[in-house]
Amino acid sequence: MRKFTEATAILKKELGDNAVRTDTEACFAASFDNTKLSFLPEAVIFPKDESDLASALRLANKNGVPVTVRGAGTGTTGASAPVCGGWVISLAHWTELKIDADAGIAIVQPGVITQKINDEAAKYGLFYPPDPASVKHCTIGGNIATNAGGLHAAKYGVTRDYVLALEGFLPTGEKVRWGAPVKKYVSGYNLRDLWIGSEGMLGVITRATLRLIPKPEAKHTFLCAFSDDETALLAAQDLIKSRIVPSVCEFLDTLSVSCAQRYSEKCFFKKKSAVLLVEVDGDALSVPAQAERVRSWASSRATDFRETAEAEEAECLWEVRRICSQSMFLIADSKLNEDIAVPAQNFVPLLKTLRKITEETGLATPVFGHAADGNLHVHVMFNRNETREREAAQTAIRRVMESVVALDGVITGEHGIGLAKSPFLEIQHSSDEIFAMLAVKKALDPNNILGRGKMFSPFNVWDYVPVNVKLPWDKKKA
Amino acid sequence: MRKFTEATAILKKELGDNAVRTDTEACFAASFDNTKLSFLPEAVIFPKDESDLASALRLANKNGVPVTVRGAGTGTTGASAPVCGGWVISLAHWTELKIDADAGIAIVQPGVITQKINDEAAKYGLFYPPDPASVKHCTIGGNIATNAGGLHAAKYGVTRDYVLALEGFLPTGEKVRWGAPVKKYVSGYNLRDLWIGSEGMLGVITRATLRLIPKPEAKHTFLCAFSDDETALLAAQDLIKSRIVPSVCEFLDTLSVSCAQRYSEKCFFKKKSAVLLVEVDGDALSVPAQAERVRSWASSRATDFRETAEAEEAECLWEVRRICSQSMFLIADSKLNEDIAVPAQNFVPLLKTLRKITEETGLATPVFGHAADGNLHVHVMFNRNETREREAAQTAIRRVMESVVALDGVITGEHGIGLAKSPFLEIQHSSDEIFAMLAVKKALDPNNILGRGKMFSPFNVWDYVPVNVKLPWDKKKA
Repeated sequence: MRKFTEATAILKKELGDNAVRTDTEACFAASFDNTKLSFLPEAVIFPKDESDLASALRLANKNGVPVTVRGAGTGTTGASAPVCGGWVISLAHWTELKIDADAGIAIVQPGVITQKINDEAAKYGLFYPPDPASVKHCTIGGNIATNAGGLHAAKYGVTRDYVLALEGFLPTGEKVRWGAPVKKYVSGYNLRDLWIGSEGMLGVITRATLRLIPKPEAKHTFLCAFSDDETALLAAQDLIKSRIVPSVCEFLDTLSVSCAQRYSEKCFFKKKSAVLLVEVDGDALSVPAQAERVRSWASSRATDFRETAEAEEAECLWEVRRICSQSMFLIADSKLNEDIAVPAQNFVPLLKTLRKITEETGLATPVFGHAADGNLHVHVMFNRNETREREAAQTAIRRVMESVVALDGVITGEHGIGLAKSPFLEIQHSSDEIFAMLAVKKALDPNNILGRGKMFSPFNVWDYVPVNVKLPWDKKKA
Repeated sequence: MRKFTEATAILKKELGDNAVRTDTEACFAASFDNTKLSFLPEAVIFPKDESDLASALRLANKNGVPVTVRGAGTGTTGASAPVCGGWVISLAHWTELKIDADAGIAIVQPGVITQKINDEAAKYGLFYPPDPASVKHCTIGGNIATNAGGLHAAKYGVTRDYVLALEGFLPTGEKVRWGAPVKKYVSGYNLRDLWIGSEGMLGVITRATLRLIPKPEAKHTFLCAFSDDETALLAAQDLIKSRIVPSVCEFLDTLSVSCAQRYSEKCFFKKKSAVLLVEVDGDALSVPAQAERVRSWASSRATDFRETAEAEEAECLWEVRRICSQSMFLIADSKLNEDIAVPAQNFVPLLKTLRKITEETGLATPVFGHAADGNLHVHVMFNRNETREREAAQTAIRRVMESVVALDGVITGEHGIGLAKSPFLEIQHSSDEIFAMLAVKKALDPNNILGRGKMFSPFNVWDYVPVNVKLPWDKKKA
């Protein structure tokens, strides 16, 4: 890996020792994200202010230093791992947060924890809907960089739908601002939305203006059991068709449910079942009416269901969903978690493909996730030390990706490409499409500073061994 | 203007005489949009299919022919006027429209009239919310190219919020597709949203997949009078702050209302008044509750108000809003209509600036428009043949733009830049921002084929005289 000793020394002199860390501890901590594939950077930069940040970018351009920007490192694709070394710019300490309740907006620096935005907004009766699973740990900068989704996307949309304006720096170090705190904005090209989801490769976000909405007054939760996976998925399709817009509609296949039952030693349903967890929300008057429609749907489609309008009781209904991810390790010691999305009418064909993959590879492929927006999380379970299973998992995952694209879906609905999905980019996009993306990258980042080695360079995660560290969210993950 | 006689002859031979028109009638009809500033193209291309379109783009690149893509020509900035001559590609005849009610999507070609999408969607209880004033005449391709807004944006968003996927051609002639019919999609850079609002300068859209939502079951309309403009705007701010999300909240200043009264010879309110037209919608149960909150707000803030839940009666309440634009010609024979947007808390400062401009220039500056999303339409009225008024209008409009940007707003909320707003681009954007936009343009359109002479080249509309033609929407415009 190329070293940039001289450039690092210059930067240290310019920004100070506290802002430019080269010690092993800082470098190791910034060397990986939630994939735990570690690549040591040469320095970790903690800019005091925008001037520090601009200096680092300018110097990086002058010396060709690869730069990786990171927040909390909760990403699951390696997008914030410095695979080509160089410098990491850490913005987790940029945590200014201001709610303007009258205007219904939040103005945030990139290091603000997403949950914190919602906690502050709630004080004014406001709501910031995007809620990735890592919401208590992830930073809003990373959410914007990956256009994070979550459980509420079908009704409320994803991060993109809440970003009014972004401030930040071009890869070459110039300060820019895209958008304004207004809902309609069509001046010039839309670089704001080009930045959103570009995984830190087209600019560095230093401030965002987010739209907030009135907090729903009430909700009603249903946990519904179905005789098998296909019946549950068809019921989900039916619910969506019926013009009910649930705020949550989580699917868990029979395998996920049975793992959760074994893990918790609880019996959620007497019979072996697939599950749909459905929630409706809104104003206090409309929720009972919505709930009545869901009840009628559940009565005719589910083998059994439980419901509640009480928050505490709802938490019990959520339990099976909260623990299912962790409980899957009862099947094997490793899992690939793929955040694919397909249109609802292709749920069953996707399921059939997965079952076929299981038959052929012997690997379990449990599925749970966001049925209302098609963003099912498909898992391939395998034991890391068994060569046959490792190899079968690699074959299986490529088959999943090919199948998803053939079913008019997308290989990543909310995690992004990073390193982990880079081998599959060409399944999703034609060479002309990738050419256009690369042309845009070159136009904005002529020296290929930001995120070098990501997205467009196929990377084989199987060649690397994850580091054995416990991250703050590992113990809490369910 | 440079001629491309040979390239045109080759294209004619390749595509046939019907697909490549060079007669005066066709060329004149394609020479202007709603600004009526006419620039004759050398040929108008009516591609039979995507292959024709690709051929035209490839040949244009080879010969450096400027290409302007157009639909119905309802745009108000000259974005579809071929200011540099060359070829116009007309896609108004590409009108395939398919509703997939189960999936809740519409798949449309660019020539589909926007109203038609809503009419078809309504047959399945579905709704396509964006509704620019030209909704009965404009095409969806143009709506996407300008990210069209409309009356319902505050609650329902703009065109961008409903585009799931786009198919089309890069400026250099390669077929591409951005997005898929799913709500979550984060694979690769987001060229879809870069295309949206890029005014036909970064690609040619041939097909769009649009998200539809359940049609609201009910609505309730209020027409509220206020003693003066400032009181009305503060009341609008107050309504927004109160967490009511109206589907419509149109402001009309006292001057707009008095013009409408004189024009229609009706008396909407006994006293001289500014007006807010407020509509709430949603499911049948929640609308009465929302209406009660609006009623309570109106009772305490308005000097007078009328309300109805009946569609026919609502149309009467809408009348003042529908005729106010046309009625302004009672003041002067010409108007500049600027679709600026500012945050709600800056409504009153903007109003004060406008009143000051009126004092200084003697020109009337009536304001009406979408208060709920800050997209007020500011008008400068002048008599075209009076030199002093023409000159004063030019000064006034620049002052408006400067003031809007100083108030954290945008010079165009829904019309775009095109030719008309090109002199003001540098008020909104720094040179670094414009440099980045131009870099992206050059990356995707290296021969500067699409929309040459637009957006980035300051154009003085005052040097040109509009053609005297009546367009299909002129007589119907109210």
